[in-house]
Amino acid sequence: MVQQLISLLDWFGICIFSVTGALVASRKEMDIVGFALLGSVTGIGGGTIRDVLLGVQPIFWVAQPAYLVACVIVALATFFVAHILHHRYRSLLWLDAVGLALFAVTGAGNALVHGAHPVIAVAMGVASATFGGIIRDILGGESPLILRQEIYITAALVGALVYVLLTGSGVSADGAVFAGFMAGFGLRAMALYWRLSLPRYRARGGADESY
Amino acid sequence: MVQQLISLLDWFGICIFSVTGALVASRKEMDIVGFALLGSVTGIGGGTIRDVLLGVQPIFWVAQPAYLVACVIVALATFFVAHILHHRYRSLLWLDAVGLALFAVTGAGNALVHGAHPVIAVAMGVASATFGGIIRDILGGESPLILRQEIYITAALVGALVYVLLTGSGVSADGAVFAGFMAGFGLRAMALYWRLSLPRYRARGGADESY
Amino acid sequence: MVQQLISLLDWFGICIFSVTGALVASRKEMDIVGFALLGSVTGIGGGTIRDVLLGVQPIFWVAQPAYLVACVIVALATFFVAHILHHRYRSLLWLDAVGLALFAVTGAGNALVHGAHPVIAVAMGVASATFGGIIRDILGGESPLILRQEIYITAALVGALVYVLLTGSGVSADGAVFAGFMAGFGLRAMALYWRLSLPRYRARGGADESY
Repeated sequence: MVQQLISLLDWFGICIFSVTGALVASRKEMDIVGFALLGSVTGIGGGTIRDVLLGVQPIFWVAQPAYLVACVIVALATFFVAHILHHRYRSLLWLDAVGLALFAVTGAGNALVHGAHPVIAVAMGVASATFGGIIRDILGGESPLILRQEIYITAALVGALVYVLLTGSGVSADGAVFAGFMAGFGLRAMALYWRLSLPRYRARGGADESY
Repeated sequence: MVQQLISLLDWFGICIFSVTGALVASRKEMDIVGFALLGSVTGIGGGTIRDVLLGVQPIFWVAQPAYLVACVIVALATFFVAHILHHRYRSLLWLDAVGLALFAVTGAGNALVHGAHPVIAVAMGVASATFGGIIRDILGGESPLILRQEIYITAALVGALVYVLLTGSGVSADGAVFAGFMAGFGLRAMALYWRLSLPRYRARGGADESY
Repeated sequence: MVQQLISLLDWFGICIFSVTGALVASRKEMDIVGFALLGSVTGIGGGTIRDVLLGVQPIFWVAQPAYLVACVIVALATFFVAHILHHRYRSLLWLDAVGLALFAVTGAGNALVHGAHPVIAVAMGVASATFGGIIRDILGGESPLILRQEIYITAALVGALVYVLLTGSGVSADGAVFAGFMAGFGLRAMALYWRLSLPRYRARGGADESY
């Protein structure tokens, strides 16, 4: 049951991240095969790192090529419709937020299913949620979203943490998944909307940047 | 038989990619150990990612350290002879094209040997062919070749696709390997020579780059 | 015995690299969760790549979450005390030098413990010592330390080489570890202090950078 729910949300997250990869490809004016590559790498990247770190073999998309095919189809479709979007970068940010919250929960859920320690499950949620986007931004030559001011990694952390804590305290799978997603997405959405950020490190007296 | 042929071409591809890594090191004016590192990472990087994704253990160069030693020797030799080249960047592009086409075929071939689905085999061909170069360009602080205008990922895709389709339709191993290599290299060579590119995504009315 | 000593030094190296990750986060004025992410990735990154390449499962910090917890704690502490440092970048360079020398030895030692060929053990020492810092610099948007002028990769290579050679010639584990660390750290320290570098590749007559 919980595995089916997590698997379903994983599908959503993968397709949404594939769109964000394709949107970065559109910003770099790549060709259609570039869209397919960047969409696929972004869609399946976070989950691939999760599976490699957990030692899960075969990796999910090697076992089921349908994941890869879906990423490619979604990226190709984006090639033809991206111009309809009024604000491609804003769309990218919001879709990335949905994918981030989905993967924070499913990354942690998959880790628990494979018997990982709760601390590791939270880490896998954060890694699944953020690393696909990091690879996307590095391959696309964009400044990584994790370096922007608004709350980002924290949203993935909170989503994964809420899910793992609720699962550990006996809440139903549906409830834990829903609460985890809402916590992660809600926090990121508020951060995007009101440009919220946590207190940042500030250089203080005595510190200097030079060698 | 087919495994021997693929293994032989893998050796060529690894050495050629090692030269391209060393040429990036030369452009960054690194020292000789930097040449060895960048040459090795580029030479064995694509195949390493392929083996990790396919769950092949031990990884090919851990099983046979001769691969790593060959990369280092080739990179060191490049340190001493790179100044003979009249156009180092042009040499890099053309050697990269040969390596790209070789790895597209051998990456797909290795995946098929390990029982992967044909779709996955094509993906492994593309990954083997492009990821070594991507890592090289990121480590060397160069703009990745995949972001350039000319056909690049597409050449890897076509080479891998031709090889996998011909293998699936019962063509001899030699024939499939040769056709796959010629398709991939031919396409990339034409793209480099005539600066061919696929139609690229263009921002159209309604789309804007700003937030 | 040797495994205990290597494990102890691994702990030191992980915590020290976590501080360097946090210092990069401080230079980018990230928030406290960004410190935790960058500290963790830097602290456990090199060892993770080593374990993945060697096929060691589960990966050390998945088996023992205490490593990850330590990285997070160290990074959070750095958030509050980094302003005490008079020269954050200089501190980063020197701490990175200690971590580099520790990981060159422990990376090679771990590889030998897992039955790797001596050549592979040296490569694992270099990879463990350098890749955590490379990932740190890429995620943090800094120019990688490997591209700087001073001897860097060479120090990791020499440290790993001294350790592997002494171990192979029957020197006691303590002696080999100590000599390997001193060789790697001593070389890097001299390079930092006197700004030493190996002869670098120089473009010579006939070579040109353009296409």
